Amino acid sequence: MKAIRVAIIGAGSVYTPELLDMMGQMRGDIQIGSLCLMDTDPARLSIMTGFTRRFLDALDYKTELSQTADRLEAIKNADFIITQIRVGGNAARVNDEKIPMKYGLLGQETTGAGGFAKALRTAPVMVDIARDVEQYNPGAWVINYTNPTGIVAEAVTKHTKASFISLCGGGRHPGNMLYKAYGIEHSRVRYDFFGLNHFNFSYNITIDGRPITDEEFEKMAEYVGGVNPELTRVFGAIPSLYVPYFYNKNERFRHAAESEKTRGEVVQGLERELYELYADPDLRTKPELLSKRGGGDYAEMALGVISAIANNRDTFAVCNVSNNGAIPFLPTDAVVETACMVNASGARPLTFKSLPGHVWGMVCAVKNYESLTVEAAMGGSRVKALQALLAHPLVMDYDLAAPLLEELLNANQQYLPRFFS
Amino acid sequence: MKAIRVAIIGAGSVYTPELLDMMGQMRGDIQIGSLCLMDTDPARLSIMTGFTRRFLDALDYKTELSQTADRLEAIKNADFIITQIRVGGNAARVNDEKIPMKYGLLGQETTGAGGFAKALRTAPVMVDIARDVEQYNPGAWVINYTNPTGIVAEAVTKHTKASFISLCGGGRHPGNMLYKAYGIEHSRVRYDFFGLNHFNFSYNITIDGRPITDEEFEKMAEYVGGVNPELTRVFGAIPSLYVPYFYNKNERFRHAAESEKTRGEVVQGLERELYELYADPDLRTKPELLSKRGGGDYAEMALGVISAIANNRDTFAVCNVSNNGAIPFLPTDAVVETACMVNASGARPLTFKSLPGHVWGMVCAVKNYESLTVEAAMGGSRVKALQALLAHPLVMDYDLAAPLLEELLNANQQYLPRFFS
Amino acid sequence: MKAIRVAIIGAGSVYTPELLDMMGQMRGDIQIGSLCLMDTDPARLSIMTGFTRRFLDALDYKTELSQTADRLEAIKNADFIITQIRVGGNAARVNDEKIPMKYGLLGQETTGAGGFAKALRTAPVMVDIARDVEQYNPGAWVINYTNPTGIVAEAVTKHTKASFISLCGGGRHPGNMLYKAYGIEHSRVRYDFFGLNHFNFSYNITIDGRPITDEEFEKMAEYVGGVNPELTRVFGAIPSLYVPYFYNKNERFRHAAESEKTRGEVVQGLERELYELYADPDLRTKPELLSKRGGGDYAEMALGVISAIANNRDTFAVCNVSNNGAIPFLPTDAVVETACMVNASGARPLTFKSLPGHVWGMVCAVKNYESLTVEAAMGGSRVKALQALLAHPLVMDYDLAAPLLEELLNANQQYLPRFFS
Amino acid sequence: MKAIRVAIIGAGSVYTPELLDMMGQMRGDIQIGSLCLMDTDPARLSIMTGFTRRFLDALDYKTELSQTADRLEAIKNADFIITQIRVGGNAARVNDEKIPMKYGLLGQETTGAGGFAKALRTAPVMVDIARDVEQYNPGAWVINYTNPTGIVAEAVTKHTKASFISLCGGGRHPGNMLYKAYGIEHSRVRYDFFGLNHFNFSYNITIDGRPITDEEFEKMAEYVGGVNPELTRVFGAIPSLYVPYFYNKNERFRHAAESEKTRGEVVQGLERELYELYADPDLRTKPELLSKRGGGDYAEMALGVISAIANNRDTFAVCNVSNNGAIPFLPTDAVVETACMVNASGARPLTFKSLPGHVWGMVCAVKNYESLTVEAAMGGSRVKALQALLAHPLVMDYDLAAPLLEELLNANQQYLPRFFS
Repeated sequence: MKAIRVAIIGAGSVYTPELLDMMGQMRGDIQIGSLCLMDTDPARLSIMTGFTRRFLDALDYKTELSQTADRLEAIKNADFIITQIRVGGNAARVNDEKIPMKYGLLGQETTGAGGFAKALRTAPVMVDIARDVEQYNPGAWVINYTNPTGIVAEAVTKHTKASFISLCGGGRHPGNMLYKAYGIEHSRVRYDFFGLNHFNFSYNITIDGRPITDEEFEKMAEYVGGVNPELTRVFGAIPSLYVPYFYNKNERFRHAAESEKTRGEVVQGLERELYELYADPDLRTKPELLSKRGGGDYAEMALGVISAIANNRDTFAVCNVSNNGAIPFLPTDAVVETACMVNASGARPLTFKSLPGHVWGMVCAVKNYESLTVEAAMGGSRVKALQALLAHPLVMDYDLAAPLLEELLNANQQYLPRFFS
Repeated sequence: MKAIRVAIIGAGSVYTPELLDMMGQMRGDIQIGSLCLMDTDPARLSIMTGFTRRFLDALDYKTELSQTADRLEAIKNADFIITQIRVGGNAARVNDEKIPMKYGLLGQETTGAGGFAKALRTAPVMVDIARDVEQYNPGAWVINYTNPTGIVAEAVTKHTKASFISLCGGGRHPGNMLYKAYGIEHSRVRYDFFGLNHFNFSYNITIDGRPITDEEFEKMAEYVGGVNPELTRVFGAIPSLYVPYFYNKNERFRHAAESEKTRGEVVQGLERELYELYADPDLRTKPELLSKRGGGDYAEMALGVISAIANNRDTFAVCNVSNNGAIPFLPTDAVVETACMVNASGARPLTFKSLPGHVWGMVCAVKNYESLTVEAAMGGSRVKALQALLAHPLVMDYDLAAPLLEELLNANQQYLPRFFS
Repeated sequence: MKAIRVAIIGAGSVYTPELLDMMGQMRGDIQIGSLCLMDTDPARLSIMTGFTRRFLDALDYKTELSQTADRLEAIKNADFIITQIRVGGNAARVNDEKIPMKYGLLGQETTGAGGFAKALRTAPVMVDIARDVEQYNPGAWVINYTNPTGIVAEAVTKHTKASFISLCGGGRHPGNMLYKAYGIEHSRVRYDFFGLNHFNFSYNITIDGRPITDEEFEKMAEYVGGVNPELTRVFGAIPSLYVPYFYNKNERFRHAAESEKTRGEVVQGLERELYELYADPDLRTKPELLSKRGGGDYAEMALGVISAIANNRDTFAVCNVSNNGAIPFLPTDAVVETACMVNASGARPLTFKSLPGHVWGMVCAVKNYESLTVEAAMGGSRVKALQALLAHPLVMDYDLAAPLLEELLNANQQYLPRFFS
Repeated sequence: MKAIRVAIIGAGSVYTPELLDMMGQMRGDIQIGSLCLMDTDPARLSIMTGFTRRFLDALDYKTELSQTADRLEAIKNADFIITQIRVGGNAARVNDEKIPMKYGLLGQETTGAGGFAKALRTAPVMVDIARDVEQYNPGAWVINYTNPTGIVAEAVTKHTKASFISLCGGGRHPGNMLYKAYGIEHSRVRYDFFGLNHFNFSYNITIDGRPITDEEFEKMAEYVGGVNPELTRVFGAIPSLYVPYFYNKNERFRHAAESEKTRGEVVQGLERELYELYADPDLRTKPELLSKRGGGDYAEMALGVISAIANNRDTFAVCNVSNNGAIPFLPTDAVVETACMVNASGARPLTFKSLPGHVWGMVCAVKNYESLTVEAAMGGSRVKALQALLAHPLVMDYDLAAPLLEELLNANQQYLPRFFS
């Protein structure tokens, strides 16, 4: 087994220990010979590098650990570059959550008007990173879970030639349900996965090759936390955990309106606590509190995909990649979140066994929004931005979208040079 | 010029005089040798037959006029069967308008939840009519403007082989704008027409073959009654007059909520007045009041299409017909409202010069809703009906859709035998 | 009726009187106010200008007649530019016919290896003409019947933005059959027209809107000169007169091998005779002999299309234009010969009522050949040229194609600067 | 590792020892707990069962071995049913080879007119087998390498719901080249595989994820036995070993015309010798002579696919399966030979990284032929059969196809009840 070199951009994130933990669990599969932590925030980087050293030592995991604030340095010396950045930090996130609420629209990190603002900030930065990879280390792979992961992937794949795979833990969702319900391992489960990041549906689910029974489907429906089992039955498919932001949008809005704090504000508090813990020179394990932050699946997916590539082992995984004809009615170069075969040649979408009759239209609507958002973000175009908001089924109203756009742009002015030049 | 035989199903409608008027105007083009008026309401049929006789006499229009309550009799003896029915009458329409309002959703005759209920009532009846034509008079043409005209067309074309063209005055909308703005005749204007009935966009507009100027576009935008010119500019296309029900949905809802009467209730009053006028043995002309009822364009379109067929004259016209590949990302058998070449061989969709980048997703969403509604209506399936409402961007919310569906079904029980058997 | 200005590039052709004759017949429909004859051959130009003057005078057709050897002058002062050139003249044509025969392959002006050589010579010249139009007179229309008309159209539409319609008399073929068989006028007939120039199939044929009967089909099959009626029955469609070059290729090869002269050699003789006639100052009518040259339909089509554009009158016509989705399995920008609606906005392909199950594959093969030929011609690429010949079902054999290509290139060296620079 | 049950239909084939040998090699991967040999020829079945027993004993391979002449018995008790039948035996094959030669057309077992006759005989029998599986053992997998394997697969997948994967050793062709040239293991190699059985092209070839170099491509081109390296260079892709039957068809015809014996006749002799060897009670190993029969790759593919399914292990493999959108311009239900991900859920086509610009047309032509052949074989239709031969680029000539069809049908009358009833 050849050792690989990994860099993490945005390594100051509180999530990093999830990756370290998974590195330990998968050491029989992949050997990380060097690990470079990169972040633009020196304080966080220092805390996380210290913790990483202790954590890996405790695991007796031998690797050459380094830290840097220089993105290019990190990029140049890695086989795999993991990107987990947050442009504007949680402060910007809280804006994304609160501003839409003023207009009667849900503010959420990845969907709707909030995700739109995040995308405008994030897509150009991620394209810059990928261009650096393209130029300085074209053989390297970028494994991304910076959100909104699907929009980011479309921006990068349309504007660079970097080898780029965008992931989301939601790709393992049907497997998680079966594991929780029956203790069935992910490796025994396969499915068609139709749609986009945070707006998708799984079906044709098999266990050891046999279709799941109606009873198993029912039980999965009950285990889909946060989604009404009735809704799952109407779809006849396992929806993303985020579909309630669409199909129960009024209830979600009311809940948000009644909450004292937004999720971003909660996370800000959590993260303060977590950094205090990580800074403790005696902490050598993943703190209990991290589980409240969410995102455990991502590390499993990221290292699973890296293993498939590094070992050139054919592996089923859900990725955000160019559609490439898998969904025939979406553009070839539109990014979709879909079941792929991953190996050293990259992530190749599988064709579908069947396409769903009753959610394809809404997926088209959201995809149209996403592609317009990429155009707006990269071109700094207000008209495209307005078209994007109008194309989104959660916004759609011109009388709201026009002033909302202005407010979002103004609140993010420092992160949107393309709109203010 | 060979005389043709025309039957009107639903001839008791207050609209009928629009057709009579246009018959007179187009007598140089088409000669209607026999005209059969059919209606299930004997009182209205009698009033309208009397008025028709006087009106045509006043025009000195020679035709063999008959009336009947027997649909088959009307169908068997016609070359063209015009259908203009309203299942459940204006009373059902008022329900369609009021019930959704209880759920915070706009009730409208053709779009959203109101149009959905109308479709459930109407599609099976229109399929029955078309099946009669298929069986008893397969060479005849059905020219329909029963609403929702696009959904009705999809039901009929998927379930029968009758020669069927569904029309809406909105197909002439860009021409109307240019006529109002500049006095330019329709015959000088052509355009790409993308979308569905009451949710469509016109662009690539030409006058005498040359593209319209930016200035002309601006002026058209101002003449699109009811649509914010800013919105038209963002689209870069002339939208249907009904798109504000989508893109200004909140404002439209507020307006409806504040109105004393629904449009259906207004129409009920208007129609009572109109029937009184028509019953007057001295009335021999189209009453002034009819112009308030709307729908003038339809007669022009209906007789224009009949003329193109009867005279086998190639004619540009916007029709609701099977997509047939014109919009490559929509199913072949999905009905779209699109620019066609019409002649004796029927209405053939034209390919598009270009497809729009920024409204295609929402058109897919609405088309998905429409196709599910056809399935629900024909199969009497509650699950399909719920899928349809969830697929509609104006409903989408499960917590509203589920109880709303029950209420709509119960309110229409007498017209929905397929759901209650 | 507004008078239009017409220029003919290649006006020295013996065909020109067909156009003049049709001008006379259609004077009620289009008024040609100025007619500019352009040719690179001064002798032919002089003869044809003289004859044109006498012919139009005899018709009492008032137009401003001019002649020029300056292509740009002709282009700049015309609303419609008719192109009918022959790069290399009939001498090159005879090469096209004879060289393939050495390899056991049929040499023919438009199909197979002969048409390939003609395409290499002609496509870049036609693109040059279209670029001049684009640059100096962008509002003008180019009406082309320079062969191979489909390949020429693909080269021009892919490499320029000129308004360009390529025609072939074969588009009227089904109508001709019905006229010959029953005296039925073209205006009463419509059909789906599937395929490419000189490799196409017509079906769903209607007369006054009703499908033709089996008996009428049988009679048409008998009137398809040169095509075995059995073959037509197997296709269930009316084939192009050129399909025997495919489906009876061995018989055609034998016939050519046994002929004393090629068609090109016969034509050379015919044309010498015709120029002598045209030079006669007493000739004021179309000479009888011209009918032996073929091509009568083209004038009817060319002026029909010009009339549809000039009068902005919707007209069914078969044109060679970008597929644009009409045939969903061919590229959008591939040129096909297909039924269109023509008016002042140009030629818009109609969608098909149905697509044929049994000739689509071979049409794809020939289209692939054509597109590769355009690439080879425009790029001067030997590899592309070889790929083109291998893609053609009439060549396909590498052991023949490789030396044949060299011989064709060498024989045409003076006309192929892109291959020899 | 769970033991699986395997049945071989057509087990009397001389190929069977290849499977036995591979069973031994792959015993660490799959454990075959029972092996049922089925054949309609009692003599061959008896010889091969005896040999199998000795061979497996010599390997010390424990399995429950049985033999039967009852197809249903074999089908009912197996998890995997391997089909390797030859309808009409080698006698019919020799007809397939000789009859087309009379018409100047190459006779070959799988391509052209010879493969056509074989398909007519074989497709309905294979459909019958698959229907038995569907009815009596719906959970079982059919692994087929009965030729023409692509046409057989299309017949079966269009007419039954059996789980069916058709294989051809050619799917491993690019890997074989790299192994021969550089000793690179198949597991390190991946590629796009475009086309149909025996008419396909591999490209985007990677080794350990990196694209092959030009030098490696050149070396592969030299290792493609029987294909001119120049031709491979023109394609820029590794062609099937059978493409010379297309692109060097004249040379292949001459070679066949000059050969004393057809391949079928050679094989008849070889097989006589082989059965004598197998009958020898002292033979316990694969005889040297078998390597002359060809087909070694198939066993590796068959057991590789069975292992992927039995172990639910994601595996790259080239299979003949429904296109399913992988090649967007071919029908969804057309069978193509294409790179798939295989696991317990079956073989799912991968989308393509890119599609080839210069062979797609000919692939369409051959696919059209194949689909028409399936229709002809299943429906017993002479018109469809003639359409199929005309659609094939190697036949295409009506004057040959019509009498050739009659002769082929008559020579195979006993195997074609659908054509003679």
